[in-house]
Amino acid sequence: MPIALLTDFGTRDYYVGAMKGVILGIDPRAVIVDITHEIEPQNINAAAFILRACYRDFPAGTVFLCVVDPGVGSDRRRIIVESNGYFFVGPDNGLFSFVLNSESAVCSIENDRFFHKPVSKTFHGRDIFAPVAAHLSNGVARGEFGPRINNPARLPNVDLRQIGDDEFEATIIHIDRFGNLISSIPAEFAARPFELVIGNTRVTECHKTYAEAEPYKPFAIAGSAGFIEISVNSGSAAKLLGATVCSTVTIRQK
Amino acid sequence: MPIALLTDFGTRDYYVGAMKGVILGIDPRAVIVDITHEIEPQNINAAAFILRACYRDFPAGTVFLCVVDPGVGSDRRRIIVESNGYFFVGPDNGLFSFVLNSESAVCSIENDRFFHKPVSKTFHGRDIFAPVAAHLSNGVARGEFGPRINNPARLPNVDLRQIGDDEFEATIIHIDRFGNLISSIPAEFAARPFELVIGNTRVTECHKTYAEAEPYKPFAIAGSAGFIEISVNSGSAAKLLGATVCSTVTIRQK
Amino acid sequence: MPIALLTDFGTRDYYVGAMKGVILGIDPRAVIVDITHEIEPQNINAAAFILRACYRDFPAGTVFLCVVDPGVGSDRRRIIVESNGYFFVGPDNGLFSFVLNSESAVCSIENDRFFHKPVSKTFHGRDIFAPVAAHLSNGVARGEFGPRINNPARLPNVDLRQIGDDEFEATIIHIDRFGNLISSIPAEFAARPFELVIGNTRVTECHKTYAEAEPYKPFAIAGSAGFIEISVNSGSAAKLLGATVCSTVTIRQK
Repeated sequence: MPIALLTDFGTRDYYVGAMKGVILGIDPRAVIVDITHEIEPQNINAAAFILRACYRDFPAGTVFLCVVDPGVGSDRRRIIVESNGYFFVGPDNGLFSFVLNSESAVCSIENDRFFHKPVSKTFHGRDIFAPVAAHLSNGVARGEFGPRINNPARLPNVDLRQIGDDEFEATIIHIDRFGNLISSIPAEFAARPFELVIGNTRVTECHKTYAEAEPYKPFAIAGSAGFIEISVNSGSAAKLLGATVCSTVTIRQK
Repeated sequence: MPIALLTDFGTRDYYVGAMKGVILGIDPRAVIVDITHEIEPQNINAAAFILRACYRDFPAGTVFLCVVDPGVGSDRRRIIVESNGYFFVGPDNGLFSFVLNSESAVCSIENDRFFHKPVSKTFHGRDIFAPVAAHLSNGVARGEFGPRINNPARLPNVDLRQIGDDEFEATIIHIDRFGNLISSIPAEFAARPFELVIGNTRVTECHKTYAEAEPYKPFAIAGSAGFIEISVNSGSAAKLLGATVCSTVTIRQK
Repeated sequence: MPIALLTDFGTRDYYVGAMKGVILGIDPRAVIVDITHEIEPQNINAAAFILRACYRDFPAGTVFLCVVDPGVGSDRRRIIVESNGYFFVGPDNGLFSFVLNSESAVCSIENDRFFHKPVSKTFHGRDIFAPVAAHLSNGVARGEFGPRINNPARLPNVDLRQIGDDEFEATIIHIDRFGNLISSIPAEFAARPFELVIGNTRVTECHKTYAEAEPYKPFAIAGSAGFIEISVNSGSAAKLLGATVCSTVTIRQK
């Protein structure tokens, strides 16, 4: 099955190449696809969001090789998560918070028989996670890599805090290339009329497509990642509103 | 056959990953290659140029999945173009202007049997174009996706305006990473002596290779995309001449 | 076998797409992987380092298609290097300095039967190197492409200059995305206690992992590329120390 890569390694160094080389050494015909390597360095929250937003679009059995690993070489665990028919390989630091559910099985990666030797202290992406992903993709059973564990790390849930009868406080969890602000408000909230407040701006319009909105005026939209987004037709909502990741947004339902 | 991706999605979001996931869900061994995802957001002209410059280098039967789609979710059509033995999938907004010819067959994409459900209003790249490209690559006949149409959108032709006996006005249509200015003047014009004027600069030298030119002095060259380019050995012609995409360039043949 | 791409073409133009198209025209099921296309334009030293740092992680038989080619179209030779069970294809300008050894076999690429026609003067990546790499990957013998040569170009060796009894001068050869400074000092030097001097900074601490270092304080570490690196936990060593590629670093062993 395909191996999908998600890292904060960027694309100008040898890191991604080295991981692909190790995978191809185990399976020279592996189907390797890049999700992104442009996660902000060490930003686990950003990587967890990107993974959450696209993993269900891949076929069952896909192995996600995810390396955003500020604790590399420390005693943080390394894990395989099997969840919803997918496999996730990476450090146990919260990266997989949003793919975990009560049915998930999690293993600690301990069997060094599957590692790329010698194992460096600073590049487990190449020496541990890439070969484990390749062997998983080749059909090695999850249990071969190490024992089950029950308490994988989880990020604090930023989704929604109720602050009034029909009022919730949420967070901007991602800003995309187009300047769209992706909030932690589930898209289902768009079924009822609502308004948003972010900074000094009140957003009262909601549209179904970018094209139907008036240019240069912010509006809400149910986005393709499953969350409510704030957008501007022919512009960047992030620039117009001066918003950043972690900005607070309030939703009031009518 | 291979599926080649060309978008303005950038590489830091989940958009490209989601499209690849959908393709692999239809054909887990698909050969997917990235042309670029760095088209300036919503710049249809830029994407049309990149496609024109490289599609003939791919094998016959390649499916080009092209998504630069400011009208996503509106009533703009979605099309498959079959031209010169290749397939092109994307919005009907002019993207395919330079691959169309009198022999091309064009279909409107309407049969939702091939779509990724539910179809979002904001991400047809994932929900319509990617699965259609994958099914085409898998051998589904063009006619299965929808009816023939006869009037696909075309960009205005910027190629050349004759302004004197041996004088033409043309346009800078692309600036590459090295600062080379790619004009809309066909490379065949280099068969006769000529000079170019761009802004305040007169370019009188023409070379066959970058290496044979004097450093820091602009010169003309018949470029690999089939157009005359303005280059500088050991420097950026764009910076030196203060030129941008859409700058006017005049050619006078001698 | 896989074909691994390393160029300075960037990812916003049609250059990488055109090379992939040509490869797929020769073998539509080729396994193509990108190492990087973000080498600084025309920086042969940077490309040679990236290649050296990761080629051994690929399986034997991998073909490395490397194009950083300021002399394109001039009379610089074009070569295939077979070394350590790998193949390297590109211009003869020093790119392969660090993969060459006394057992390497080198051929000049001359047989235009394998070229993509017509051969442009400005894009040998597409017209010569990509098709040669594809044919090599398909099993065509090295000797088919041209005669053996004995004197491939080599970069000056910057590794180490002894300047005292236990003192050596070295060079920063790469700065990665995280701001780590990779020196030309082999990692083996970390077996004995040492200190480094770079600019006005004396680096006396050496750690085995990033995580065990005090934040914001530079330290030395034996890096995953096989060299001693200068790093900062939670920061960029390059910014903190004002260092650049080619900065001098001195090591004094105790």
